[in-house]
Amino acid sequence: MGNGWSLDGFILDLDGTVYTGHRPIEGAVEAIAWLRSRGKRIVFLSNRGNISRRMCRERLEAIGVTCETEEIILTSSVVSRYLAEHEPDARVWVLGEQGLRDELALHGVQFAARPQEATRLVVTLHETLTYAELNDAFRAVRAGARIIATNDDRTFPGEDGEAIDVGAVLAALAHATGTESDTVVGKPSPVMAKAALDRLGLPPERCLVVGDSLRSDIAMGKRAGIRTALVLTGSATREAAMAQDPAERPDWILDSLADIRRLLEEMER
Amino acid sequence: MGNGWSLDGFILDLDGTVYTGHRPIEGAVEAIAWLRSRGKRIVFLSNRGNISRRMCRERLEAIGVTCETEEIILTSSVVSRYLAEHEPDARVWVLGEQGLRDELALHGVQFAARPQEATRLVVTLHETLTYAELNDAFRAVRAGARIIATNDDRTFPGEDGEAIDVGAVLAALAHATGTESDTVVGKPSPVMAKAALDRLGLPPERCLVVGDSLRSDIAMGKRAGIRTALVLTGSATREAAMAQDPAERPDWILDSLADIRRLLEEMER
Repeated sequence: MGNGWSLDGFILDLDGTVYTGHRPIEGAVEAIAWLRSRGKRIVFLSNRGNISRRMCRERLEAIGVTCETEEIILTSSVVSRYLAEHEPDARVWVLGEQGLRDELALHGVQFAARPQEATRLVVTLHETLTYAELNDAFRAVRAGARIIATNDDRTFPGEDGEAIDVGAVLAALAHATGTESDTVVGKPSPVMAKAALDRLGLPPERCLVVGDSLRSDIAMGKRAGIRTALVLTGSATREAAMAQDPAERPDWILDSLADIRRLLEEMER
Repeated sequence: MGNGWSLDGFILDLDGTVYTGHRPIEGAVEAIAWLRSRGKRIVFLSNRGNISRRMCRERLEAIGVTCETEEIILTSSVVSRYLAEHEPDARVWVLGEQGLRDELALHGVQFAARPQEATRLVVTLHETLTYAELNDAFRAVRAGARIIATNDDRTFPGEDGEAIDVGAVLAALAHATGTESDTVVGKPSPVMAKAALDRLGLPPERCLVVGDSLRSDIAMGKRAGIRTALVLTGSATREAAMAQDPAERPDWILDSLADIRRLLEEMER
């Protein structure tokens, strides 16, 4: 390579980068296959906390992407490992879905029988959220549970447009209880960058983060010393990227993940 | 009367003062009957926006309180009249329940067919709230709808403990969209005080507000020049009342609405 370094590990965001809802983004599946054909290492790194890695792998396979469960890193698995390692005595109450419960159980985390008995409330994206569940979470916090969140994104690119994400739910709980989350594991947290780099087994300078969010994907890469490429198939626009402070701007802006091939071919010329 | 003034109009809060959920508060029904037997005028003034006055009257009758629909003033009816009078061209999207829709329709307010077509989002307490509904509201606001709220209480005294109220939902929307409500009709707003005084047909100095909330009931009375009695059967404690700035403290603190009889008898001695 002309410039003396190569990109060998790819940290790919999912929602807004590989798929939107259940639809693949045009060219994304082929781009991933091409990266694999070049022997590149890949992890899928998502702030989704409502599904388990198994569920996510099935979703990827349904659109034509084959992968190992260990190539998928979700906040549901990262928050579960975090609690198992750092707070083994925690009794958790979940404001989330079955996918998160599955990962917590898989990691041996203990559940509280009632909101009032919880020491930890785990909050994640929750497209089936109801008032009754929000109220149970509120009661857990009022009774003393501390809040850990899979992520605090304000919105995410849903199947039919931008949709409300965990940040808004955390704001509701903070308003009602006065308690903010003390731990957020999702991107841009270094916890997620470390999980991705550990899996890739590569130093940050040989990796590239590809994602649609300036606030989570690009910011995480910048903090962790990983190069970054913004795709315009999700939350962010080119204008928003260029309006960033120069140090916060992505290294590259791609119309979509499909352009990764051209980028790498140009770099290797 | 010894002190030269008498209390003839009673502005009674409902949740936490007259009932909790579907259960009457002990002695409240008898106290209301006693007030009526003394020829006192009564209005029931509640920040509830999810039920219509008709539904509320049925709820009161179920616990043994008979009243006219016009003696009930709810934020569902007040917000409806507000929109009909001040914004007759508004097309509204409702984050709320059927009771609010009924009152809006009764007042001739127009509904938007889709969230994106709304000029106004009306937010009220919503014990059947779902993520999908929250997301529709989010989309209405992103498309330009301004927010009007029936109230912005953080919590209310529910059947099985304190529960999340509209304030938390507004915080979620504000976090996701950057837009705050520009109008809140509920207590302590002067809109509610005026609606109550208009119905009673009495000057403020001959009326008494009785309620369980320092932030809504007592604050409204203080601002409107109406005397106030805090009851300890809902959200607030005696300690919280005494911790208030002297100008914000209730004139009386009663264990419950049942004590209203003793208070009036002592005053008239």
